[in-house]
Amino acid sequence: MNTAADPIRLDSVELRIELGERSYPIVIGEDLLADASTWAKDANPRATALIVTNETVAPLYAGVLGKALAPHFARVRTLALRDGEVYKDWASLNLIFDELLGAEADRRSVLFALGGGVVGDMTGFAAACYMRGIAFVQVPTTLLAQVDSSVGGKTAINHPLGKNMIGAFYQPQRVVCDLAVLDTLPEREISAGLAEVIKYGACIDLEFLSWLEQHMDALRARERTALAQAVKRCCEIKAQVVGADEKENGLRAILNFGHTFGHAIEAGLGYGAWLHGEGVGCGMVMAAELSARMGLVPPEFARRLERLVARAGLPVRGPSGLAPARYLELMRVDKKAEGGDIRFVLLDGEGRAMLRTAPEALVVDVITALSAN
Amino acid sequence: MNTAADPIRLDSVELRIELGERSYPIVIGEDLLADASTWAKDANPRATALIVTNETVAPLYAGVLGKALAPHFARVRTLALRDGEVYKDWASLNLIFDELLGAEADRRSVLFALGGGVVGDMTGFAAACYMRGIAFVQVPTTLLAQVDSSVGGKTAINHPLGKNMIGAFYQPQRVVCDLAVLDTLPEREISAGLAEVIKYGACIDLEFLSWLEQHMDALRARERTALAQAVKRCCEIKAQVVGADEKENGLRAILNFGHTFGHAIEAGLGYGAWLHGEGVGCGMVMAAELSARMGLVPPEFARRLERLVARAGLPVRGPSGLAPARYLELMRVDKKAEGGDIRFVLLDGEGRAMLRTAPEALVVDVITALSAN
Repeated sequence: MNTAADPIRLDSVELRIELGERSYPIVIGEDLLADASTWAKDANPRATALIVTNETVAPLYAGVLGKALAPHFARVRTLALRDGEVYKDWASLNLIFDELLGAEADRRSVLFALGGGVVGDMTGFAAACYMRGIAFVQVPTTLLAQVDSSVGGKTAINHPLGKNMIGAFYQPQRVVCDLAVLDTLPEREISAGLAEVIKYGACIDLEFLSWLEQHMDALRARERTALAQAVKRCCEIKAQVVGADEKENGLRAILNFGHTFGHAIEAGLGYGAWLHGEGVGCGMVMAAELSARMGLVPPEFARRLERLVARAGLPVRGPSGLAPARYLELMRVDKKAEGGDIRFVLLDGEGRAMLRTAPEALVVDVITALSAN
Repeated sequence: MNTAADPIRLDSVELRIELGERSYPIVIGEDLLADASTWAKDANPRATALIVTNETVAPLYAGVLGKALAPHFARVRTLALRDGEVYKDWASLNLIFDELLGAEADRRSVLFALGGGVVGDMTGFAAACYMRGIAFVQVPTTLLAQVDSSVGGKTAINHPLGKNMIGAFYQPQRVVCDLAVLDTLPEREISAGLAEVIKYGACIDLEFLSWLEQHMDALRARERTALAQAVKRCCEIKAQVVGADEKENGLRAILNFGHTFGHAIEAGLGYGAWLHGEGVGCGMVMAAELSARMGLVPPEFARRLERLVARAGLPVRGPSGLAPARYLELMRVDKKAEGGDIRFVLLDGEGRAMLRTAPEALVVDVITALSAN
């Protein structure tokens, strides 16, 4: 693992999400957070900056970021929410509004989402709604957020009846991925992020999938050059897909590979029992198996994917307590469902995917076969 | 007053809000609600239609609308919220989400906002957020909603610290203004609607202001041809302004004439004590007086406006219990404020307006002079 003392600092790279007037850059590099120059382009010396983070990340990075933002804003405040998917709800969202209104924060205020997917989704949704829309910057501190959730403008909170049901498509004005912050991430969170990384390989870029097979150990050991390459490639793919289909009318749905099963596991066990990435990891194995049984992809490819998911340190079997009927019930309120028909992202050959329905009996078989006893 | 039995039915007119791919029509006519053909363009035989209304409007029109929608949708449901600005909050909004998720309503579902501004604002915001955005149709049943709040895509709920603080710009797919439903509107609500009607005359269309002076009695008596002309002219102006400045970066702010003072009165007394239109009526008188004292408009014009507001049956003096200091405090969290500076929509000559700050001492003087003892 590289450290902050590493003498060679990787050059930053900048990608761009092309969305007309809503276009924005993704900056990927080392030690960006503490560097005041990183934030010069977000500067507004008359406005309020609010760092929204959680109680785990705050002691590690909120002070550093606050100091780097200070030269650029009239005032910098920090709000640390409770940590975990279970708190991705209206009550937490409202704390952001309370903080903003309490500070008399006006329309020029900028929110900085410092944290993982939960913080990013909630902060983005708060920015979308506060005074009908203010600016926000994504500062993802987990691998999962850096490669996936911070890019593309999907924001949301959960509803007891379904994950991410209440939200908005609302683009940040910038995404800043500092690879150095991944050093403090727990093992389990690195694995969770790798689930989304593998996703891009499995359903979009077969060459990247092979690269991941070669570099999985390096990634889990957090080698900076490997991480930089993985984050960059994932953001490139995401930028392309989002640029072509911002509001998920078609192509973008592909990026939900593994998520229909995964969300059901997450919701079925109660948010927080499994990490989102863990649900996606196992969900990809299930979706690949379903694809294979439908003759859409060779069974060997499903096995190959399962091996890689396992090597990433992710579960490849569903939880023992969750019945197939409960999966179906939860999947019917998935946002991709139409008229009660569940639609799955299925592999359509190696490294390709599509959205379609599947016979319920087969879905039940797959869940049964791939659940722990 | 015309009745449903009136033999001559006015021709419907259709205006259009031009917003590129978010363009949509406004239909204005008589007896549109019960006519199934009105809703043919919103039809989706596989989808759910949800009528969101309130407990006052539901017994009058929800059944009629539901019957007219029935041929066009797989199922039509109705949700009646509690009536009043005080219920324009997260709890009510969440009832809409609960209803949709309970019905397993998918992304193709269409919401119908049947009611006044409160129902329209909340239903629009629910549509903006449910699964990150579904379609909705505005079916305004108050004069205020027909001439103003249903057109232009401003949606929101209130926060204890400020009105309309949490919301979105989200356009409906259609606005249907049925003049016949105004027959059942209480006097006080007609007056409240006339406040917004007068607003268009005072700060955009001087000729329309003269027309209003000639037709105020006919409007209060709900003569259909006068109402039709007023609703049409207001929607025309609103369509033009919104088409030029959807997100209120400039021009659109003009339509908040009277609203800075008005919102302070509404919030200061507690939502519901004064109707929104009553706050706007009195607020326009205050804003005109402030403009006159700043030398921006002849004092005679402020008097002229005050007479018309009074003839509409609206208050022209602020409530006795609300101190100027409290106004200032409330106005500082107005969405137009910047860095604690309150910005007012002030008259800039007769029939014109602009956004600017004003000396606080003068604002206090005006409030004091124009408040009931």
